[in-house]
Amino acid sequence: MRLEQSPSLDDIDAAIVGIPLDSGAPYRTGARFAPNAVRAMSVMLRPINPYRGNVNLFEVLRVRDVGDTPVVPGYLEESYVQIETSIRAIVRAGVTPFAIGGDHSVTLPTLRPIAEKFGPLALVHFDSHTDTWDSYFFEKRYSAGTPFRRAVEERIVDPARSIQIGMRGSLFAPTDITQSTELGYEVLTTDDVFALGADRLARRIRQRTAGQPVFLTFDMDFVDPSAAPGVGTPEAGGFSAHETLTFLRRLNGINIVGCDVVETNPLYDGQGQITALLAASIMAELLALVADARSKGNR
Amino acid sequence: MRLEQSPSLDDIDAAIVGIPLDSGAPYRTGARFAPNAVRAMSVMLRPINPYRGNVNLFEVLRVRDVGDTPVVPGYLEESYVQIETSIRAIVRAGVTPFAIGGDHSVTLPTLRPIAEKFGPLALVHFDSHTDTWDSYFFEKRYSAGTPFRRAVEERIVDPARSIQIGMRGSLFAPTDITQSTELGYEVLTTDDVFALGADRLARRIRQRTAGQPVFLTFDMDFVDPSAAPGVGTPEAGGFSAHETLTFLRRLNGINIVGCDVVETNPLYDGQGQITALLAASIMAELLALVADARSKGNR
Amino acid sequence: MRLEQSPSLDDIDAAIVGIPLDSGAPYRTGARFAPNAVRAMSVMLRPINPYRGNVNLFEVLRVRDVGDTPVVPGYLEESYVQIETSIRAIVRAGVTPFAIGGDHSVTLPTLRPIAEKFGPLALVHFDSHTDTWDSYFFEKRYSAGTPFRRAVEERIVDPARSIQIGMRGSLFAPTDITQSTELGYEVLTTDDVFALGADRLARRIRQRTAGQPVFLTFDMDFVDPSAAPGVGTPEAGGFSAHETLTFLRRLNGINIVGCDVVETNPLYDGQGQITALLAASIMAELLALVADARSKGNR
Amino acid sequence: MRLEQSPSLDDIDAAIVGIPLDSGAPYRTGARFAPNAVRAMSVMLRPINPYRGNVNLFEVLRVRDVGDTPVVPGYLEESYVQIETSIRAIVRAGVTPFAIGGDHSVTLPTLRPIAEKFGPLALVHFDSHTDTWDSYFFEKRYSAGTPFRRAVEERIVDPARSIQIGMRGSLFAPTDITQSTELGYEVLTTDDVFALGADRLARRIRQRTAGQPVFLTFDMDFVDPSAAPGVGTPEAGGFSAHETLTFLRRLNGINIVGCDVVETNPLYDGQGQITALLAASIMAELLALVADARSKGNR
Amino acid sequence: MRLEQSPSLDDIDAAIVGIPLDSGAPYRTGARFAPNAVRAMSVMLRPINPYRGNVNLFEVLRVRDVGDTPVVPGYLEESYVQIETSIRAIVRAGVTPFAIGGDHSVTLPTLRPIAEKFGPLALVHFDSHTDTWDSYFFEKRYSAGTPFRRAVEERIVDPARSIQIGMRGSLFAPTDITQSTELGYEVLTTDDVFALGADRLARRIRQRTAGQPVFLTFDMDFVDPSAAPGVGTPEAGGFSAHETLTFLRRLNGINIVGCDVVETNPLYDGQGQITALLAASIMAELLALVADARSKGNR
Amino acid sequence: MRLEQSPSLDDIDAAIVGIPLDSGAPYRTGARFAPNAVRAMSVMLRPINPYRGNVNLFEVLRVRDVGDTPVVPGYLEESYVQIETSIRAIVRAGVTPFAIGGDHSVTLPTLRPIAEKFGPLALVHFDSHTDTWDSYFFEKRYSAGTPFRRAVEERIVDPARSIQIGMRGSLFAPTDITQSTELGYEVLTTDDVFALGADRLARRIRQRTAGQPVFLTFDMDFVDPSAAPGVGTPEAGGFSAHETLTFLRRLNGINIVGCDVVETNPLYDGQGQITALLAASIMAELLALVADARSKGNR
Repeated sequence: MRLEQSPSLDDIDAAIVGIPLDSGAPYRTGARFAPNAVRAMSVMLRPINPYRGNVNLFEVLRVRDVGDTPVVPGYLEESYVQIETSIRAIVRAGVTPFAIGGDHSVTLPTLRPIAEKFGPLALVHFDSHTDTWDSYFFEKRYSAGTPFRRAVEERIVDPARSIQIGMRGSLFAPTDITQSTELGYEVLTTDDVFALGADRLARRIRQRTAGQPVFLTFDMDFVDPSAAPGVGTPEAGGFSAHETLTFLRRLNGINIVGCDVVETNPLYDGQGQITALLAASIMAELLALVADARSKGNR
Repeated sequence: MRLEQSPSLDDIDAAIVGIPLDSGAPYRTGARFAPNAVRAMSVMLRPINPYRGNVNLFEVLRVRDVGDTPVVPGYLEESYVQIETSIRAIVRAGVTPFAIGGDHSVTLPTLRPIAEKFGPLALVHFDSHTDTWDSYFFEKRYSAGTPFRRAVEERIVDPARSIQIGMRGSLFAPTDITQSTELGYEVLTTDDVFALGADRLARRIRQRTAGQPVFLTFDMDFVDPSAAPGVGTPEAGGFSAHETLTFLRRLNGINIVGCDVVETNPLYDGQGQITALLAASIMAELLALVADARSKGNR
Repeated sequence: MRLEQSPSLDDIDAAIVGIPLDSGAPYRTGARFAPNAVRAMSVMLRPINPYRGNVNLFEVLRVRDVGDTPVVPGYLEESYVQIETSIRAIVRAGVTPFAIGGDHSVTLPTLRPIAEKFGPLALVHFDSHTDTWDSYFFEKRYSAGTPFRRAVEERIVDPARSIQIGMRGSLFAPTDITQSTELGYEVLTTDDVFALGADRLARRIRQRTAGQPVFLTFDMDFVDPSAAPGVGTPEAGGFSAHETLTFLRRLNGINIVGCDVVETNPLYDGQGQITALLAASIMAELLALVADARSKGNR
Repeated sequence: MRLEQSPSLDDIDAAIVGIPLDSGAPYRTGARFAPNAVRAMSVMLRPINPYRGNVNLFEVLRVRDVGDTPVVPGYLEESYVQIETSIRAIVRAGVTPFAIGGDHSVTLPTLRPIAEKFGPLALVHFDSHTDTWDSYFFEKRYSAGTPFRRAVEERIVDPARSIQIGMRGSLFAPTDITQSTELGYEVLTTDDVFALGADRLARRIRQRTAGQPVFLTFDMDFVDPSAAPGVGTPEAGGFSAHETLTFLRRLNGINIVGCDVVETNPLYDGQGQITALLAASIMAELLALVADARSKGNR
Repeated sequence: MRLEQSPSLDDIDAAIVGIPLDSGAPYRTGARFAPNAVRAMSVMLRPINPYRGNVNLFEVLRVRDVGDTPVVPGYLEESYVQIETSIRAIVRAGVTPFAIGGDHSVTLPTLRPIAEKFGPLALVHFDSHTDTWDSYFFEKRYSAGTPFRRAVEERIVDPARSIQIGMRGSLFAPTDITQSTELGYEVLTTDDVFALGADRLARRIRQRTAGQPVFLTFDMDFVDPSAAPGVGTPEAGGFSAHETLTFLRRLNGINIVGCDVVETNPLYDGQGQITALLAASIMAELLALVADARSKGNR
Repeated sequence: MRLEQSPSLDDIDAAIVGIPLDSGAPYRTGARFAPNAVRAMSVMLRPINPYRGNVNLFEVLRVRDVGDTPVVPGYLEESYVQIETSIRAIVRAGVTPFAIGGDHSVTLPTLRPIAEKFGPLALVHFDSHTDTWDSYFFEKRYSAGTPFRRAVEERIVDPARSIQIGMRGSLFAPTDITQSTELGYEVLTTDDVFALGADRLARRIRQRTAGQPVFLTFDMDFVDPSAAPGVGTPEAGGFSAHETLTFLRRLNGINIVGCDVVETNPLYDGQGQITALLAASIMAELLALVADARSKGNR
């Protein structure tokens, strides 16, 4: 979106920050190139959002692209330290982070500094997988498959105010879904969401989060592979781009204190880079959601 | 569709004509290769259209592929002169032109000679963008973003009989849509179209054009990038291929005197070339629409 | 799905078998690489199917990947002999074959040995084409366009118990559809299926097949090219992946004695290989359908 | 090269003819698309050859693109009949055929009608493989691996006047090379050719063919995969494009009565299509070789 | 090379400047994306050049990436005005421009402001084509095929001090080469260069330019398509990357006042982007040549 | 090469083992997919090596593909433990490991268990980079850039008997090369190797290793990107495939106790997968080298 690029955190409300890490990916790597790919495709986007009263994002919200966090390839936990340091600086400056992953393992170190400030967060989690397994390889506790169990254990997410949306596909174990509900999350499958529709989904999210500080995490594999082929773990049978954007455009009344859009993988996206374009469009809707709330709050 | 290829205009009703120009493209070039790509994929199509009473296109309509218009790479306005000359010859021979763009800047020189014959045209415009800006770069009046303002100024399109269908996505300015309605166009956004459905959309188009001579211009970015990744300016959140084809199959009672299908970009289409296939399918539906009208008129 | 790989037919209920033949393809070759591509993408699938009561496929059904049948490149009819020999061995061992094509010409030699055992089969045929032409090139009777006429002539399919689902697009002749109904098949076009919906479609299939031994053949071009770009003969305007999977998940009460998933073409699938993933997902649903039936039958 | 396209054989000296067959390919199919791909890239070529005294190909040689021969997908031997019929018509019209394959199995039916006219031919064969195996799959005598054994058996090639050039890589059996020399061919490996250099290679070919009627067959896998990635059976460690073209530019004093360039596979060639460009360049050098001989002969 | 990016011209010796224009391309467009692609691949390069005494480019030469010049898509001559304005500012600030094209038409407006300061320039021109035609389409005098005739006519290049290196391939007319020598250029074909070798080539260039202010223009199609597939007009039979780099590393004693590297086309480069990497490597060698001269001059 | 696949180490002389790890890659990930890609392309190879007296690899050497070592994505040092365990089992069984990486960081844990058995190894290292930096990111001692410094420190490589071959390109620091010679390695740059030629290079390696147990590690970026585009860190200006294979075919008199071929990255290799084919060819030459030595030793 041709944003100003500078690491400075002065005089802004929101910061776009890339997290070029794919060391948590169990299978397809390449999400480390997503921040630049999403930035590149965002040149096709424009500042006015007609779905929220023609709000001009950049008049209501002072946004800057503050670049990428450092990462330590091959060292997931050391990378977490770097990511936390970067996000903590953003949060402490009173700035709302909008992160571009990276695989889904990056959400945990993004949540930690935000929860330091706001307390346990309401999580709004769009994904085709719950990512609440206990461990993946050799009992390692950190990976793209485990962050939302860790987040509950670390008390940085309040599962009673949180909701996971879009689960589908075959399961490792009959407990793949129930492991989330046992942690306290509300879980809506893809078929549940089709049955609800956009307006009732928006209401359900608003009621579940109940005004608490919300972190919204969007895994691109929520979307069907036809519209998002460039992801780490595609799952056939998801939502179209129009359905996806409509879900986000209908959201309101939620109190976002941070967001991320993760698991875009440009290496599998084809020359058209339609996944990166959709990721940029989703990020723009999230900016519009926050801008709109602020705009209304100001009146 | 394995049509006869020859520049001759004798003894035909309709001419397929390529316009291999992408000098009007603000960002992604490559639409110059669309005419050949669409021809190549059209070998997968067959002559009978079951959606219009099994009409055989080539029995009702004598169609020939008359090749490509000349263009002058790097010289948009000089290219316009060449395109107009080619289209004028087609129109004066009493033949209906079905043009394959090129970027959307080619529609203006296609409209001019048709309006010379028929007077101001009713425009039926499928697109995700209005293309009614006043200028794009350095106050140049001609580009892929301006043809439908120029067409009104030149009085070759009658906006009061014209309709723009499918607008969506973020805007440069709050006036992106209103600039069209202020020119006199009717505008239906993507969400408007979803709300209307195919049958009411068809009726709306029929009523708006009211029997006037119609030019139908179809920008492939009307379609969602999942089904049309190979376009110049993809806009996430559009229609599926089935929805798109259904809109066209339900059309009737409109008096088409010319058509184009533009903005296919084979360089971004992937090895499957699904955008070129869809563009060929759309062109076949437009041929069927004209063939069907002629077939019914003949009875 | 990380299945055991071995040619042994001992102690199994179902066999995954590849048929790497594309000699019947009239246009795009490459389906010979589908068996390996579908296997490769199936590593993303997991054994539990939540759409059928969390059935664990591999607990209910003993499944093995028995490798590929031999084929004779350039010799379609000799290849048929090889395929029949391989499938006959599977069937005679009391094992249900789940074949991965190959172009659609491979279904005929798959059907023959199954019909030897079970008599004329009820065919449930998902496809955008009827494949009931009499001949294609130089009056050759075997190709990807003719198997379901040959199958009726050879009395290995009972058309009165069979149904073709999903036909769409332009036709070679007005008889493309009626040639099937004249053979005795029931035919549902894509628009018929959209009108019916998943539940009524399932009932229609159950009623038509009426408990007879069913062979279910799934041509990937049933699906829209947006979700299945990697196919031999793409046809714009088909079903989404979610719609497709829902049709299969709602099926029950049919007595499957063999299946195939054909016409995946990895060469046109792009780096994301979403068609191969969807083909693997469809195969997993077919396994689940059989597992579920067996599981219920056992109680 | 923007040649006139028409099936007519009147008033021409040489005919470009495509043979879109890949049914003989043991592994990678796709060579059926080579004729169109080579034609498409040939638009980058120009008529004057500076390596042969600025001869203008099309002034000295009347050349036309006569289109493609019919083929019967899945039926190799029936396809041979079609190819022979087409080539026979060309040869009987006194026209020199320049064929674009297809896999290497197409050379046998190309040789037959030429030998009918000229008697046993001297073969000049550029390739990384000898293609003189006896059979490949299931004792089938025809495939891309066997044509030059069959040609000797059928007495349409005189091995004592023939030479195979460029063999390299690992072997199926210690006899892969000796099977050719035992048939009577002279064989030069890739390392032999590097040791000889272009001038001595040209002399060797001239001496071996000794003025007899020559058929020159060029398999694109002669070239290293870096310069020809789009081939059916790539063999690492071959010649660069410059070395390859120099070998051909130094040839003279040979009496060519037919040529082909085979085994280009556009599906593996990448968006740049450099193999198709090189194939077109090689074909242009072969045309120049014949034009130059004729030009000198006329003086 | 992770250079500082800023439009400021203060306190630098050399400026990297992109010229994202492909409106002069007669065939393949896409060179407008080269500046960003070359920048992206340059992250793989490092500052020390071991071929010139381990000179550290950025210690000897203060270099900044000043961004891209404006261009006017579809308006070649208007784009020239924009490019000239940008380059003039660089030259007047006493800074040496290192431009990344763009198609070869961009060199003319780059040369003009440099010649304003230094007088007629000695041109060192690496390319497979002379680009000295008089016109290309419809007698338009500006395109990628004409700049070096225009430059002589405008007296901004002194052909008697200039040399064109690498011409090869088929010709439009027997005069394609002589048109250059008649203008006064020295011309070395690809075969001439192979015969000379790197050291004698370097001496020839040094002698020809004789200490005059030199503009070095490098068209990526000088290189063989195997090493540079992503170019606008590939010409089979060129130099390897090692040969190319060696030619540049042996150069010395020439007085460079400006350079460009043009005709990289990322759309045809494949996922590995090896042409963009080579273009970046060539630009780094040109920087090293200037740095080395300056470093030696300082002693 | 269609080897038997089984984890058993019984009754074999050599084991092909994949190491699917790219957690050490500083930039491009994807080498984790190399083992399967190299296996897939190896089907094009055959058992007889004509460059070593038509030795039949699999008659002289009993070889099995023992599958992949476990790895721990995101945990480089824990992955090392897994790799060491796997390689140790191979070595202790008296079997020679031929490993397919993975990025170059995998060589260190491969060397350790071999050195446990044989003592400090003579390293023969083909690469364009020395990989002897002290640390890369955040002072982490393990990555693809550091293994050959660690190996000296751990006394598992004897630098006085070791040689690094092929270094080229720009440097981080003037010490990039000298850091290796200071550790005790002999270093030959790309230009040194071109000057030596294949025979003198072979002698130099034989003399340097002097009969000691040798580990030969081959980084695919030794080769020019034209012939090996699919690598992690391409470096323009390397060797052709023919030059590379010739270097290996001339080697003899060295006592290999283990090998690896690393840094193939299939995601950047294009549809032709020429890098994977070359990697497979290189591995076959290394097997032939060992087979030939054994074959001669047996006489």
